[in-house]
Amino acid sequence: MPAVLEFFFDFTSPYSYLASTQVEALAQRNGARIVWRPFLLGAVFKATGNSPPLSVPAKGAYMVKDLQDWVRQYGLPELALPSTFPVPSVKANRLALVALAEGKGPAFIHATFRAIFQAGRDVGELDMLGELAASVGLDAKVALARIEQQDVKDELRRNTDDAVARGAFGAPTFFVGDDMYCGNDRLFLVEKSLMNQKGA
Amino acid sequence: MPAVLEFFFDFTSPYSYLASTQVEALAQRNGARIVWRPFLLGAVFKATGNSPPLSVPAKGAYMVKDLQDWVRQYGLPELALPSTFPVPSVKANRLALVALAEGKGPAFIHATFRAIFQAGRDVGELDMLGELAASVGLDAKVALARIEQQDVKDELRRNTDDAVARGAFGAPTFFVGDDMYCGNDRLFLVEKSLMNQKGA
Repeated sequence: MPAVLEFFFDFTSPYSYLASTQVEALAQRNGARIVWRPFLLGAVFKATGNSPPLSVPAKGAYMVKDLQDWVRQYGLPELALPSTFPVPSVKANRLALVALAEGKGPAFIHATFRAIFQAGRDVGELDMLGELAASVGLDAKVALARIEQQDVKDELRRNTDDAVARGAFGAPTFFVGDDMYCGNDRLFLVEKSLMNQKGA
Repeated sequence: MPAVLEFFFDFTSPYSYLASTQVEALAQRNGARIVWRPFLLGAVFKATGNSPPLSVPAKGAYMVKDLQDWVRQYGLPELALPSTFPVPSVKANRLALVALAEGKGPAFIHATFRAIFQAGRDVGELDMLGELAASVGLDAKVALARIEQQDVKDELRRNTDDAVARGAFGAPTFFVGDDMYCGNDRLFLVEKSLMNQKGA
């Protein structure tokens, strides 16, 4: 059975975007399966008493520089910093759940992260979300209706509660079994953990 | 002229300890010179509105795990988590300045970080500080008198103010010229920055 890598992310989080560009190659190298788990970063902050980096001005200023360092490191296109920050991501996160259920998860997730952090688009707008859904072969109208239904809302909430119960306090957060890693900058440790599992 | 790597650290900071075990090899590989700059992390937090990781329980819990991940990564001895945390490090930081002025800086800094994070010793105690000073060939009595003098206190404060003015908000913080990097986990970017400078 392949090892499982759980990837908790929120579309509001630029470090989640960075990690999203790397996790598939990492999982493939190590014969692992990714479980994509959108969650609500704002609710995680609230539940844990943590606060976003931007709440400390010097930290926010460094974050902008640091993100660009990582973009260069990964060879990604120039970073678009969204005009509305935090990105209104709740509906997009729900739509990721809908896309995952339809077998279009990774394609939707990459398209959405690119829309936000490469094109600077506002995924708080339903038109934009419909466009993204259609671009990966979903029926936009059906998908946008789904995200208003209670079971989808509940699933996003369950992902959030589960992450917090297991120790998460920010995004992205990774689990290899109970072994938790926080931050895009811990992906090399995620990889070591998967390699150790293979060796065990 | 060799490139200069400024290393701002505080003995209270376990991530500064981790970085201190790597910076010399990193500098040597890249023909850079290290400027060791003890500063006051508490004052940095106060000036920037930042807070220590332990102030968020979930973050503090992960920090303990993360530190151990790094200790394994670097092949260091098991981590001793000091019984008094934050470590009362002000006098030790001042003593580092005295040791640096006497040409014993790196030896003293390594001995002190080891005492705290490998042996779990309390460097808030003057006896311990005297022992550390003597262990690197300083006259303990003279050195302990120096740390009560205003010019040494002022130098520590100047390092702190300088770091904050240039954007620091935590420890360790590195500068390659104006190029700032925050955290032990950014050392690979520090190295890239030094390599680019060599290439330029």
